[in-house]
Amino acid sequence: MPSTPLLAASRVLDLAQPLPLDCGLSLSAVSIAYETYGTLSPARDNAVLVCHATTGDQHVASPHPITGKPGWWSRMVGPGKPIDTDRFFVICANVLGSCMGTTGPASLAPDGQPYAMRFPVITIRDMVRAQIALLDHLGVDRLHAVVGGSMGGMQALSLAAHWPERAARAMVIAATAAMPAQNIAFQEVGRQAIMADPDWQGGAYYGTGRAPDAGLSVARMAAHITYLSEATLSAKFGRRLQDRESKSFGFDADFQVESYLRYQGESFIERFDANSYLYITRAMSYFDLAEEHGGRLAEAFARATARFCLVSFDTDWLYPTENSRDIVHALNAAGLPVSFMELAAPFGHDSFLLEVPALDRVMAGFLSQ
Amino acid sequence: MPSTPLLAASRVLDLAQPLPLDCGLSLSAVSIAYETYGTLSPARDNAVLVCHATTGDQHVASPHPITGKPGWWSRMVGPGKPIDTDRFFVICANVLGSCMGTTGPASLAPDGQPYAMRFPVITIRDMVRAQIALLDHLGVDRLHAVVGGSMGGMQALSLAAHWPERAARAMVIAATAAMPAQNIAFQEVGRQAIMADPDWQGGAYYGTGRAPDAGLSVARMAAHITYLSEATLSAKFGRRLQDRESKSFGFDADFQVESYLRYQGESFIERFDANSYLYITRAMSYFDLAEEHGGRLAEAFARATARFCLVSFDTDWLYPTENSRDIVHALNAAGLPVSFMELAAPFGHDSFLLEVPALDRVMAGFLSQ
Repeated sequence: MPSTPLLAASRVLDLAQPLPLDCGLSLSAVSIAYETYGTLSPARDNAVLVCHATTGDQHVASPHPITGKPGWWSRMVGPGKPIDTDRFFVICANVLGSCMGTTGPASLAPDGQPYAMRFPVITIRDMVRAQIALLDHLGVDRLHAVVGGSMGGMQALSLAAHWPERAARAMVIAATAAMPAQNIAFQEVGRQAIMADPDWQGGAYYGTGRAPDAGLSVARMAAHITYLSEATLSAKFGRRLQDRESKSFGFDADFQVESYLRYQGESFIERFDANSYLYITRAMSYFDLAEEHGGRLAEAFARATARFCLVSFDTDWLYPTENSRDIVHALNAAGLPVSFMELAAPFGHDSFLLEVPALDRVMAGFLSQ
Repeated sequence: MPSTPLLAASRVLDLAQPLPLDCGLSLSAVSIAYETYGTLSPARDNAVLVCHATTGDQHVASPHPITGKPGWWSRMVGPGKPIDTDRFFVICANVLGSCMGTTGPASLAPDGQPYAMRFPVITIRDMVRAQIALLDHLGVDRLHAVVGGSMGGMQALSLAAHWPERAARAMVIAATAAMPAQNIAFQEVGRQAIMADPDWQGGAYYGTGRAPDAGLSVARMAAHITYLSEATLSAKFGRRLQDRESKSFGFDADFQVESYLRYQGESFIERFDANSYLYITRAMSYFDLAEEHGGRLAEAFARATARFCLVSFDTDWLYPTENSRDIVHALNAAGLPVSFMELAAPFGHDSFLLEVPALDRVMAGFLSQ
């Protein structure tokens, strides 16, 4: 059910100060592209920061400027919706390292040339540092809530752990406190596909008229499989053929699932920068919230003040329920208030983006507590 | 525990007649590279045909001529082993379309040039047709057993269904009667990675000094993840770093799992032909034993005479237990004798190749029945 696009305020914040990074460097002249919906209350206590996933963007509930599609969480964010813009001041920023207006590898370095692979390797915490700079600019000392699914959930965890006064609530959906080995592996395949493409040119493809489209497309195809459940693929496509009565005995996309995947790869390259994909997946593979605490996750939350709500999906094999349960155990050990639900949903990891009414109810309920 | 290499007889059979194929074409001058172990009994009733998996070969229990590694099933095939070469005459042939001596896309066509993509698209049944031609040549009318894991299991199913008099027993391990959508998808990613590599050159890379090594390596990396369980990856590598104390903040293989995967990709290209990978995965994605029977799998086995033994592994997410159970239900419906076990093994799909003593016992017991 398409809804009327919300009137989103789209802005870009240019940071006056260099942004310090986990790698030890600082990044100067950082821009943060963001949108806001609704009105900040006089007490400045109704702000909800929505953090997007790997290839998401700030257009959480406004049409995507390239594809024209509705915002990626239009079903969740809007007037009367679970993240109610009549009530909350909703903020969503493009993450550091991405390509939709926030500084990333395609941005110009101080020498006037694109950073390309000179861009420093960033972390999830670096992304959150940029979010915090934005909150400072907006005058939001303490969020009503920070909310995110997948990589967005990792940012929510990082914010609640590392900036413990900045959020009263953290809603963490289909996420993990440390990237599992299997997904490190899948992400490495994606990066190798990009870097093996001769058009990648060591990352310096900007302005050459060539880009590693083929490699980026393969990376997206591989990742896309991990976002869906086998049940979804079977139900949606099974072994059905695409626009033909019988197999072609060739290498065209005979099966619907092949055609669908190719489409996913081809449409992705129109809206996403390959180097951003490298940097963002690298940040995810580096994510391990317990690492600085000798593997003791509870200690990462020692100073946290937020109430937490964790949600996993029973068909999510990318970040399965046990990943969320590990976080819940750590929060319990840290004495923090946490609610946790494994929701039944057929769509695999992507369930957080799709029609799962139970998630809407959990979200609305948690934000109202 | 390495064992003394068996004395394998390595031979090549050149078929006198063209091999008819499911696509409607025939392939002339087909060679089949195979090995035998043990001695065929005077009654010719002790032959066991071992069918190899996607990237396997005829060197089931003899050192690989390129890598020097022990045969891929040395633990299973040998004197006193579950497939006992003191008792059985063991046959293992390189499948049609492969690259270890049996005719495939790298072979010369009648015009003296490599087939490359002129090679016809083959099916699992076409592979079995070549196996049957070999059995005819060897004078084996009825196998004591046909045995295989993964794609080898698909061949065993196809042989028992389509050549119902040729096998007295069929041992089908970690297989499926129809390629699931998720694996069609993964295989499509692999093929796209190969075909996106400019060095693939439309498949006509033979003799050019270039080959789609990068694409083939990415394809192998993606496939390799599906062969292992998340538990194996976590236990074997977890988030441990490779030869370093801390993250590099770069794109080298920081994590052991990344380094391992890159090694898997790089070592694979030394022993395998990219076009063979295209054709063999295509054959697998086409595999659907019930297709010619309106989806009624039991009818595919209507004329079968074999006893069946099905084995699945509890951590195999590529061809999970439900795939084997579907086959068992069909065999039951067809009134055929079948035993079925889901074995506990931590290694995922690759369990059939690894140290799973329970599988040894099942194999030895079934072959002795």
